[in-house]
Amino acid sequence: MRVSGQPYRTIWVAEDGWSIDIIDQTRLPDAFAVVNLASLAEVAHAIRTMQVRGAPLIGVTAAYGVAIALREDPSDEGLTLAMDTLVATRPTAINLRWAVERMRSVLATRPYSIRADAAYEEAKAMADQDVATCEAIGRHGLPILKARWDERRRPAPLNVLTHCNAGWLATVDWGTALAPIYRAHDEGIPIHVWVDETRPRNQGYLTAWELGQHGVPFTVIADNAGGELMQKGEVDLCLVGTDRVTRIGDVCNKIGTYLKALAARDNEVPFYVGAPSSSIDWSIDNAAAVPIEERDPAELVGSRPFPARNPAFDVTPARLVTGLITERGVCPASVRGLDWLFPEHGR
Amino acid sequence: MRVSGQPYRTIWVAEDGWSIDIIDQTRLPDAFAVVNLASLAEVAHAIRTMQVRGAPLIGVTAAYGVAIALREDPSDEGLTLAMDTLVATRPTAINLRWAVERMRSVLATRPYSIRADAAYEEAKAMADQDVATCEAIGRHGLPILKARWDERRRPAPLNVLTHCNAGWLATVDWGTALAPIYRAHDEGIPIHVWVDETRPRNQGYLTAWELGQHGVPFTVIADNAGGELMQKGEVDLCLVGTDRVTRIGDVCNKIGTYLKALAARDNEVPFYVGAPSSSIDWSIDNAAAVPIEERDPAELVGSRPFPARNPAFDVTPARLVTGLITERGVCPASVRGLDWLFPEHGR
Repeated sequence: MRVSGQPYRTIWVAEDGWSIDIIDQTRLPDAFAVVNLASLAEVAHAIRTMQVRGAPLIGVTAAYGVAIALREDPSDEGLTLAMDTLVATRPTAINLRWAVERMRSVLATRPYSIRADAAYEEAKAMADQDVATCEAIGRHGLPILKARWDERRRPAPLNVLTHCNAGWLATVDWGTALAPIYRAHDEGIPIHVWVDETRPRNQGYLTAWELGQHGVPFTVIADNAGGELMQKGEVDLCLVGTDRVTRIGDVCNKIGTYLKALAARDNEVPFYVGAPSSSIDWSIDNAAAVPIEERDPAELVGSRPFPARNPAFDVTPARLVTGLITERGVCPASVRGLDWLFPEHGR
Repeated sequence: MRVSGQPYRTIWVAEDGWSIDIIDQTRLPDAFAVVNLASLAEVAHAIRTMQVRGAPLIGVTAAYGVAIALREDPSDEGLTLAMDTLVATRPTAINLRWAVERMRSVLATRPYSIRADAAYEEAKAMADQDVATCEAIGRHGLPILKARWDERRRPAPLNVLTHCNAGWLATVDWGTALAPIYRAHDEGIPIHVWVDETRPRNQGYLTAWELGQHGVPFTVIADNAGGELMQKGEVDLCLVGTDRVTRIGDVCNKIGTYLKALAARDNEVPFYVGAPSSSIDWSIDNAAAVPIEERDPAELVGSRPFPARNPAFDVTPARLVTGLITERGVCPASVRGLDWLFPEHGR
C-alpha cells in the first residue's frame, strides 16, 4: 500500500540487514513514524504496547523477533526463551503462536551456526506469504461485494461496516477485511466504509487513515452507532477481521464485534469475516476456551480514578457469521465449511 | 442526592429568586461547578450544549426557561418565542415538548401580569413532580432487582448493566434507571453496576461519578464490552432510561442501547427501561417517526480531519424490552401494557 504515494509494507528488514523497521501504529493517524527494533525485548515491547498489532502482523513480527534473538543466542535455550517471551506478549491472537511454532519446527533441527540466517529466511517467507494470503482474500472477497452491489440496484455507494482495523496495517500488506474493499474500489465499484471508532484503543482511526491514503470514501462512527445505521438500511454488508477462528467457525475478534454481528442478523445484513488460515485454531472447538486478553483499564479511563475493566476481544458465534473469506476461497463458518477448504485439517 | 455529603438537586431557583442554578454536567466528573442561567438564550444554550441533559431534566429546565423568558416578555408572542426556542434545542427527548406544552396549557389563559409568577409556580411543581416520579420508579423497580437477586442464589453482587446516564443527574433527583439501583443498595442488596462509557459524550462518567458519590460499587467498561460480559454470565440485568417511548413500547434512548438489548436477548438477560410517563409519546406508533438527533461530528473525532457521523439515539424495538418501569408500576412494552397502567391514554 502507499503512504503519501510511496509504497510501504508494515514491517521490513532495516538497512543494517538484520534489525527490523516497523510503522509505529500508536502514533497514527496523527504522525507517521518508523521505529527500529533491534532486540528481542524491543520486539516484545512493540507487540505488547501495540506499536504493531493485528493478528497477521503480530505473527510476522514475532517471527522476526525469533530471528533477532537467535543472532545473539542460537542455542535451544535461546530459541525457547525467544518463543516464550513472544507468545506471552498477547494471548488471544492465534497467529502469534502459529508463527513461533512454525519457526521452531523449521529451526529446531538446524545446527546453531546457521539458525539465525535460516530464521531470517523463514520470517521473510512468512511476510511474503502473508501478502499473498491477503491478496487472495481480496480476490475471493471481491465477488461477494460485487454481488451485493448488483443485488442492491441503487446508484448510491455500497456501504460496508467494519470494526477495528483489519487493513494493511494489521497485516504485512493489503489487509484481511479491507483487502476485498481495496479490490472493489480499484475495480470501480463505488464503495463507502462505515468505520467503527473501536474503543478503547481507537483502531478505527487506523482504518480511516489507511482508507484515506488509498482514496476509499469512509465515515467514522461511534461503536454505538452501527445498529442504528443498520436499522435505517444504511449498511449493506459487515466485514471484519479475526484474531482466532475456532474449529467450528466461532470468530474471536476485537471487543464489540459480537454486538455488530447481532445487529447484522437482526437487520438481515450479511456478516463476513476475512480469515487467513493462520488465524484458524484447529485445536479448539469451544470458543469459551479462547483466552480473552484483559488489558490495562487505563486504556479506557485514562487517569480518572474509576474502576474499569478492559477485555480486548469477544467471540461471535458461528451462527451469526455469513461466511469466512480465506485465502482458498469463501466457506460457511462451520466444521464442514472449514473441512471443505482445508481438508488436510479435516476430521 | 448528595455531593460530598451535601444534598443537591440538579436544578434550583438561585438566591435572587428568579434565575436558575444548574450543575454544569459538561465539567463532570472532573469538576463540580454550578452555573447560573439568567436568560432564555442561556437556558437554550445550556440544553443544546448538554450542560443539562437527560430527558426529564431537559423538560424541567425548559419549564424554567419559559418562566425566565416570560419575566421579560409575558405576551403571547413571548410565550411562543420561548417555546419555539426551547423545543428546537434537542429534537429527540419527548419530555422537552411535553414540558413546554404543559407550560402553554397552564399559561395561555392567564393575564400577562401574572404569567411569569404562574410559570415559576408550574416549573417548581414539575420539578417536585419529577422527584416524586423518580422516587416511585425506584420503588417499583426495587422488587425486580430483589427477585433477580433471590433467583440467582449467589453470594456475589447482583450485576446490573446500564448505558448512558439515567441517574439523578438526568432528572431533578433520584434518576430513572438508577432509582431502583439506589433503592436496592440502600436496602442492603449487594449490587454492582457495569457502566457503559457511552461514546461519544461519555455520559458513563456521569453515572460513575454519581454512583461513587452514593457509594454504589461500579466498574466502567467500553460500550463494546457488554456483549462479552453477558456471554460470560457477568450481567444479571440491564436497566436503562429513555428519551421517548412510543405508543407500542419501542424505546428511543442513547445511541447503542439497541445493541445492548440485542445482546441481552441473545443471552437471556432481562432488559428493563426506567420510563416516567413524561417520556411516553402517546402520539407515535411507528418508531421510524421519532426524529433522531444528529450531533456535531466533532463530538466524536475532535479536530481530526476525518468525516464522521454522530446520531445521538437509537430505537430498541419493544420485542427486546422485558418491561417498562413507570411511576405507576411495571408493565410490558406494548399497547396493552401501557393501556393497563395509563387508561386515560387508552384507545
